[in-house]
Amino acid sequence: MAEENNAPAAAAPAEPSKNALKKAQKEKEKAEKKAAAKARELAERQKKDAADAEDVSKEDYGELPLTGSKDFKPTGATRVELSTIPEHEGDEITFRCWVENARVQSAKLAFINLRQGLNTVQSVIAASDKISKQMVKFSGTLSTESLLVVTGLVKKAPEPINSATIKDFEIHIKKVFIEKKAEVPLPLQVEDAERPLPSEGLGEEEEKATEGDARPLVSLNTRLNNRTIDLRAKINHAIFVVKGGVRLLFTEFLSQKGFIPVETPKILGAASEGGANVFELNYFGKPAYLAQSPQFYKQMLIAARFQKVMEIGPVFRAENSNTARHLTEFTGLDLEMEFQEHYHEVIRVLEDLMLFIFQGLNTRYKKETDLVRSTYHVDDFKLPESGKVPRIPFPEGIKMLREAQGTGEDVGEIGEYDDLSTPQEKKLGRLVLEKYGSDFYVLDQFPLAVRPAYTMPSPENPKLSNSYDFFMRGQEICSGAQRIHDAELLSKMMREHDPPIDPNSAGTREYVDSFRYGAPPHGGGGFGLERIVQFWLGLPNIRMTSLFPRDPQRVTP
Amino acid sequence: MAEENNAPAAAAPAEPSKNALKKAQKEKEKAEKKAAAKARELAERQKKDAADAEDVSKEDYGELPLTGSKDFKPTGATRVELSTIPEHEGDEITFRCWVENARVQSAKLAFINLRQGLNTVQSVIAASDKISKQMVKFSGTLSTESLLVVTGLVKKAPEPINSATIKDFEIHIKKVFIEKKAEVPLPLQVEDAERPLPSEGLGEEEEKATEGDARPLVSLNTRLNNRTIDLRAKINHAIFVVKGGVRLLFTEFLSQKGFIPVETPKILGAASEGGANVFELNYFGKPAYLAQSPQFYKQMLIAARFQKVMEIGPVFRAENSNTARHLTEFTGLDLEMEFQEHYHEVIRVLEDLMLFIFQGLNTRYKKETDLVRSTYHVDDFKLPESGKVPRIPFPEGIKMLREAQGTGEDVGEIGEYDDLSTPQEKKLGRLVLEKYGSDFYVLDQFPLAVRPAYTMPSPENPKLSNSYDFFMRGQEICSGAQRIHDAELLSKMMREHDPPIDPNSAGTREYVDSFRYGAPPHGGGGFGLERIVQFWLGLPNIRMTSLFPRDPQRVTP
Repeated sequence: MAEENNAPAAAAPAEPSKNALKKAQKEKEKAEKKAAAKARELAERQKKDAADAEDVSKEDYGELPLTGSKDFKPTGATRVELSTIPEHEGDEITFRCWVENARVQSAKLAFINLRQGLNTVQSVIAASDKISKQMVKFSGTLSTESLLVVTGLVKKAPEPINSATIKDFEIHIKKVFIEKKAEVPLPLQVEDAERPLPSEGLGEEEEKATEGDARPLVSLNTRLNNRTIDLRAKINHAIFVVKGGVRLLFTEFLSQKGFIPVETPKILGAASEGGANVFELNYFGKPAYLAQSPQFYKQMLIAARFQKVMEIGPVFRAENSNTARHLTEFTGLDLEMEFQEHYHEVIRVLEDLMLFIFQGLNTRYKKETDLVRSTYHVDDFKLPESGKVPRIPFPEGIKMLREAQGTGEDVGEIGEYDDLSTPQEKKLGRLVLEKYGSDFYVLDQFPLAVRPAYTMPSPENPKLSNSYDFFMRGQEICSGAQRIHDAELLSKMMREHDPPIDPNSAGTREYVDSFRYGAPPHGGGGFGLERIVQFWLGLPNIRMTSLFPRDPQRVTP
Repeated sequence: MAEENNAPAAAAPAEPSKNALKKAQKEKEKAEKKAAAKARELAERQKKDAADAEDVSKEDYGELPLTGSKDFKPTGATRVELSTIPEHEGDEITFRCWVENARVQSAKLAFINLRQGLNTVQSVIAASDKISKQMVKFSGTLSTESLLVVTGLVKKAPEPINSATIKDFEIHIKKVFIEKKAEVPLPLQVEDAERPLPSEGLGEEEEKATEGDARPLVSLNTRLNNRTIDLRAKINHAIFVVKGGVRLLFTEFLSQKGFIPVETPKILGAASEGGANVFELNYFGKPAYLAQSPQFYKQMLIAARFQKVMEIGPVFRAENSNTARHLTEFTGLDLEMEFQEHYHEVIRVLEDLMLFIFQGLNTRYKKETDLVRSTYHVDDFKLPESGKVPRIPFPEGIKMLREAQGTGEDVGEIGEYDDLSTPQEKKLGRLVLEKYGSDFYVLDQFPLAVRPAYTMPSPENPKLSNSYDFFMRGQEICSGAQRIHDAELLSKMMREHDPPIDPNSAGTREYVDSFRYGAPPHGGGGFGLERIVQFWLGLPNIRMTSLFPRDPQRVTP
């Protein structure tokens, strides 16, 4: 059956038709082309083999497969930290690093600046009987920010290398592999991110070259839009190592003093503490609010007999302020403690805490501090030689400001029971620095009217209160007070406050009621972590101290 | 003028009228009454003076003014911690404490159980030539939970006092002052809050007496509604000291390993990571979202060359689950790190971290751990004697479950590439405990399909992945993985994921793009702090491990 069906095809004409001739011709041409292609291929392969034979280094460079995604076996080779390079003179070491920049000097010589953490080192690769020209070219044309694994010899540099943080040693490359290639071009140059911001650096208008410097000044907005590249700058690493340091030092000091770390809720059923500047959210169809501070809750824990509590957590403020000093989300360093007889026991703990942090920053985080301050030409942070923190009663501060009236900047009217304006705070900071030699001080006994309703009035003057602010370089970093621990007095003060607060309103009632059952006298304070970092380092904009800052205009990245 | 005006009154009639007589009579009576009242007053004052004269202790007890609100001078007297009482035998000490309960034994004898922190001590006051009956009565009728300042003599107890934590000593009261009186009645008895919850303790229906015990069992809801009283219970103090301990140990271990503590934003401009179960908020008129985890951001920091980061912060899940295992706000313990050659480097750090935390809890927080476990009759937490954490490949776990099929509880169908159900997890936990003697273990190489889109597929089997969960007592406490550090592969996996994720959508694009510029291979994990505490202590409900828990039904207090 099958044969029958195929019969017509088998019964082909004996003589070739025109079509058949054409076909044969075509096939011949095809075969010739194929043979030529094969010959070319062979020639190319021979050429490549020759080149490969020439490339004595072909096993020593190239691109690695994506780590972990393909069959992989760890080599187990020890990888070295760049910071330990001086210990490895004469050794062959292997390390992971990023390309800061690579340049071909000649067909036989290339340089790569390599970075790891806050350290950079220069590496050199020279063609030899063991290193091919191909490998030199590969090395000198590596794209900036690519991730490498480098093996090389640590040698004393013939002269100090100013472009690297490691100045006395260089790496003579033996092997260089790309672990992860960086795409070209980069949306932002990391070296541009290393340079200081102009003034407060908010606007695009500042994106221009400075006099006598052809390089562009990149605005803070551009940097923040490309934050994961921007954050690679050494100055940014240093800022966030310092920030982490403040956090660790805060925890270390207070946990040693017996403070228990706690977590209070960030989602609240009612907008307590006045209700202004609060973010509203949809909580399963009902309104809820983001906590503006842990104030009520940390006090409720003191009422619940937790004698000393601390909290590090986000704080949310729906304040539509677009300044260099405001964030809508920042990190609160809070503490609250019972005291025995006098709220100055609390001030003392807060002072000692900050002195401990400053000392820790000066010793454990000196390198990072110096790196940032030197970029911004910022003075050292002065602390009183006596070790005694200036603790200035508010009326005394007013007196100092009034006596200095007419000197320096005009700071406007100075009211006896008014809050200080920002220019007044800064001026007082300078006066305190002159008089006490300290960039850090405490202002005590603030006017009652300018403080929250839960602030204990002063026993010395009913228009003052047992409350205090802490300052660094003339700017407030902490606000605190003795709190009222009596439900009746607290209710009265809330009703009389401007604006008044209803002590029976949702969220507030539970807070007030917690003081009905034997609450101890207590006080505390709340520090802004970003502010401590900003003023310690002398940075022009608070956004620089937040990894992914949030302000009324910015919720990305 | 004034006299003229007064003339009519002066010109009174010479003869008394009827009215005048009445008036005189009245005045006489009035004068007599007044004299009588004066006499009574005098008599009473004399009586009181006599009583006062009798009250030899009147300077040694009473109610103090509100600390800090009135003119006050600290006495500077040292106040003693109750925990140091054994060192003070024979001494007169002064300390602040709360009334656990007070009872009058007779007109001449009263007892007060006093508490400070986790310590309680019995005090006794007996009438004598130095201590008045009035003072005994005052002491024996102090309201529960009032705050006192007590001065007394530390004496060896004639026999062990079982009702107090300090059993071998008692205080012989010399002075007792109320610093802050507790209102009566208390909304919740602290002693009721000390007792274990029935089962998971969610419902009001459990608010009943248990057999053979007349005391009411107070439901978790009632306790949480009165949380500031509830939290005064010793068991609650212990839970939160342990919780703070886990937090401190986490920080201590990782900071020693070079992890930088960071803060990633909790307000996001886009609902990334799929968009389900996310709270929406009003951000200056535009929608924004609460972070469900720091996942994207901690990875972006690794891409930004922060080699090792850790974060402790709130995590928000809009999941409408009303179970004993869910919270809408909890504390994430997160870490992310680059690794050199194999993601097992990350698992090793996580294992060592947890072993450090367990060891720290067993040494530094043993007292608190024992207090809670003894209330709930919970077994010790078993760790492998070898010190080697069981690290079980997922297929091996499936095999163990299948081999155990038919024994014990039926845990349903066990799919080769399905996620484990909660009963399966619990059963596997029991099997691991039998086989390896450990309540803590790791399950490695989970099926790819049940993990997030950013999980690196396994090089050994494309249906598996380089991902892992950590378990305590058969319940998951941590989920982690190697993450994809290549933008193209990540985009592909997102599009192919179920449900698919658009790699170009807002919030996601910045995340994907951060892997274009030389990102290192990395991995990490996220622990639930409350879960670690719950399973360490063996508590029936996760709400017990949150100071002010949040669930779909509860946003207060």
